[in-house]
Amino acid sequence: MNFEEKYSVLGKSLRSSLIRELLKYASVPNSISFGGGVPDPETFPRNELARIASEVIEKEYSYVLQYSTTEGDPELARQMVNLFDKIFGIKNLDVDNFMFTTGSQQALELAGKIFLDKDSIAIVENPFYLGAASAFKMQMSKFITIPIEDDGMNVDILERKLKDLDNKGLVKKVKFIYVIPNFHNPAGVTLSLEKRKRIIELAEKYDLLILEDDPYGLLRFEGEHIPSLFKLAGMERVVLLNTFSKILAPGLRIGAVAGDKEIVRKFVLAKQGTDLCSSALTQRIAARYLERYDLIQQITPTIKLYKSKKDTMMKAFDEYFSDIKGIKWINPKGGLFTWVTLPEGFDTMEMFEFAKEKLVFYIPGQAFTPDDSPSPSMRMSYCLPPHEKIIEGVKRLKEVIITYGKSKGLI
Amino acid sequence: MNFEEKYSVLGKSLRSSLIRELLKYASVPNSISFGGGVPDPETFPRNELARIASEVIEKEYSYVLQYSTTEGDPELARQMVNLFDKIFGIKNLDVDNFMFTTGSQQALELAGKIFLDKDSIAIVENPFYLGAASAFKMQMSKFITIPIEDDGMNVDILERKLKDLDNKGLVKKVKFIYVIPNFHNPAGVTLSLEKRKRIIELAEKYDLLILEDDPYGLLRFEGEHIPSLFKLAGMERVVLLNTFSKILAPGLRIGAVAGDKEIVRKFVLAKQGTDLCSSALTQRIAARYLERYDLIQQITPTIKLYKSKKDTMMKAFDEYFSDIKGIKWINPKGGLFTWVTLPEGFDTMEMFEFAKEKLVFYIPGQAFTPDDSPSPSMRMSYCLPPHEKIIEGVKRLKEVIITYGKSKGLI
Repeated sequence: MNFEEKYSVLGKSLRSSLIRELLKYASVPNSISFGGGVPDPETFPRNELARIASEVIEKEYSYVLQYSTTEGDPELARQMVNLFDKIFGIKNLDVDNFMFTTGSQQALELAGKIFLDKDSIAIVENPFYLGAASAFKMQMSKFITIPIEDDGMNVDILERKLKDLDNKGLVKKVKFIYVIPNFHNPAGVTLSLEKRKRIIELAEKYDLLILEDDPYGLLRFEGEHIPSLFKLAGMERVVLLNTFSKILAPGLRIGAVAGDKEIVRKFVLAKQGTDLCSSALTQRIAARYLERYDLIQQITPTIKLYKSKKDTMMKAFDEYFSDIKGIKWINPKGGLFTWVTLPEGFDTMEMFEFAKEKLVFYIPGQAFTPDDSPSPSMRMSYCLPPHEKIIEGVKRLKEVIITYGKSKGLI
Repeated sequence: MNFEEKYSVLGKSLRSSLIRELLKYASVPNSISFGGGVPDPETFPRNELARIASEVIEKEYSYVLQYSTTEGDPELARQMVNLFDKIFGIKNLDVDNFMFTTGSQQALELAGKIFLDKDSIAIVENPFYLGAASAFKMQMSKFITIPIEDDGMNVDILERKLKDLDNKGLVKKVKFIYVIPNFHNPAGVTLSLEKRKRIIELAEKYDLLILEDDPYGLLRFEGEHIPSLFKLAGMERVVLLNTFSKILAPGLRIGAVAGDKEIVRKFVLAKQGTDLCSSALTQRIAARYLERYDLIQQITPTIKLYKSKKDTMMKAFDEYFSDIKGIKWINPKGGLFTWVTLPEGFDTMEMFEFAKEKLVFYIPGQAFTPDDSPSPSMRMSYCLPPHEKIIEGVKRLKEVIITYGKSKGLI
């Protein structure tokens, strides 16, 4: 049977993600990978989770092993209400302002379903988080990209593009502005308070929704927490996506949508036909964990660990990269990623062949362009390799940059 | 902000499922519900699962608490290969013929994504399993419905409709035939071997894919297991959907797709943007469970329990329903459901108001019509209420039928 004939337009268009293909190489022995964006498994509170898992299965089996509601565990929602109050000082929420998803990825996909038609426009950042790109692309809608600077999205360009759309009568086609405000994936930068306020002003002016994706916000190494757009503008304007993947464990697959009850209800309806409900077991494990332990206290060692690894990487950059003319990198204030931009003319995808030789891996910036165009940048994660491997990896990468740069006459 | 303006066509069209709305009433004290299709929690092997959960979190934390691959746990896939060999005598499979989903519901939704465009046709059964309907409807494609008889889909009508489509040059628009062969939800019937063979012949003649959904096949009360279409026709023609929800525990949220490697790969790619991966924890729990316990032996008490409850319901039907002229019901050979059809003129949705009065609940057949049209039938599940409640519930339902029938001049 010729399966190809049977596929839908979407089915035919599906391709394996570039990251996935590239990371296959990273499992070669003696290789050093800065590619993955996964947490260090030693940060998972395995003893606590093992105890809780066994306990909830024994005692709450008729809930945790059964089908649950599409919106998710009400006890976890209650914990979220408490967390938002305690950590962010957001007091006006109740359980109906939350619903749980299979990681943030599902929330992004549901957002695509709820908001985007083929002729819709989503305003996104450039570089563009790959997971959001693959979710939104399933709706075949259009993107308008706004470049990211050291303090987040270039708001002047955002303003200009919105004005332009308005002049053309197209601003009604814009369904939302998608933004990762803290420790951006892949750009590593944080959106400043001033820019948050300007984005909100523009969203109000043109009556746009903001989709705020914040998986890393609690992993801050230094400086003051900047209030979320969700807090600044309120639920009338902002839907906030959170996840337990970076602060507890990705294997639980729990994301959370916080928003106006009407919108949350739409997410629930979209999830109903998508996968009926998420696992009550993993949600109840998370709920009991939050009930018994102080999350902020629990993640303090994780933050310390990632900060020290980030520092090691920055020191190695200083040592090995400083003499490469025109190189630039982000010193992130939190999260998992830094973003290195090589001098003009470099193509980190092409350079990947050289990196494979030296057994050092990163994600080429091309993976984060909405139109798959060449990029001189690369995403590097510091959270998984041990300190000495970080130094050794940066050293190898320096050689890669030099060899590739010379071969292209760029250095 | 007027959210309604921001929603997509799909977003606007999303409505809460009828079942969900109706089952809200079932939580009233002293009510008896035959509505839900959920397993009895006492059948869940909670002690075994609690032990395994704690053990895999302690010992395999770097796998079970981490992100996993989109295709799912390779150890669970290995267990599936063994199961298919041991239970069904299907020997030509390997791990790449399987992928895991968040319950069957996600597999149905991914099938919709991969195969259905707006102008595609899906051939489905009438009554139509509600979960499949809500998944496929998200692609806005067309349905052609084939009525179900006591031995499954009416194959003569299927043949006629396919011929008709072929004459109109539309048969290429047909992407698959969706069929629940065993202990149909909601119809309770099983597709005969003869009909399975005829469906395959027609699929071959018109070069159609078959999507075989088999959540209940292992829950057989009596008679011989009938080979699956997947076994009869092979992976070239059939994609088989399975789930652990009815044979282990729905709270784990594990469904399985079995098929040709190329098609399985497409499901994986569609899942990547949909939710990245399912929980490695719940999958590894299932894998270890299958490794250590004999599934068939483990589900024997469950089958016994459901059979005895089914027998109680059938006996109660004989006692209370026999004198209602024109009533018909299915005596299922397995699974969770029976399907009761009242005499012409009855509308079980309208009758629901009378059932609410008497505190007895069922799912009106209307919920399973593709176009939401009135139906004289209702789905009744026997697996959750205790024996005495089954008898009392059927007795109440008799009163409901009489009162409603008299009020409409039907009796």
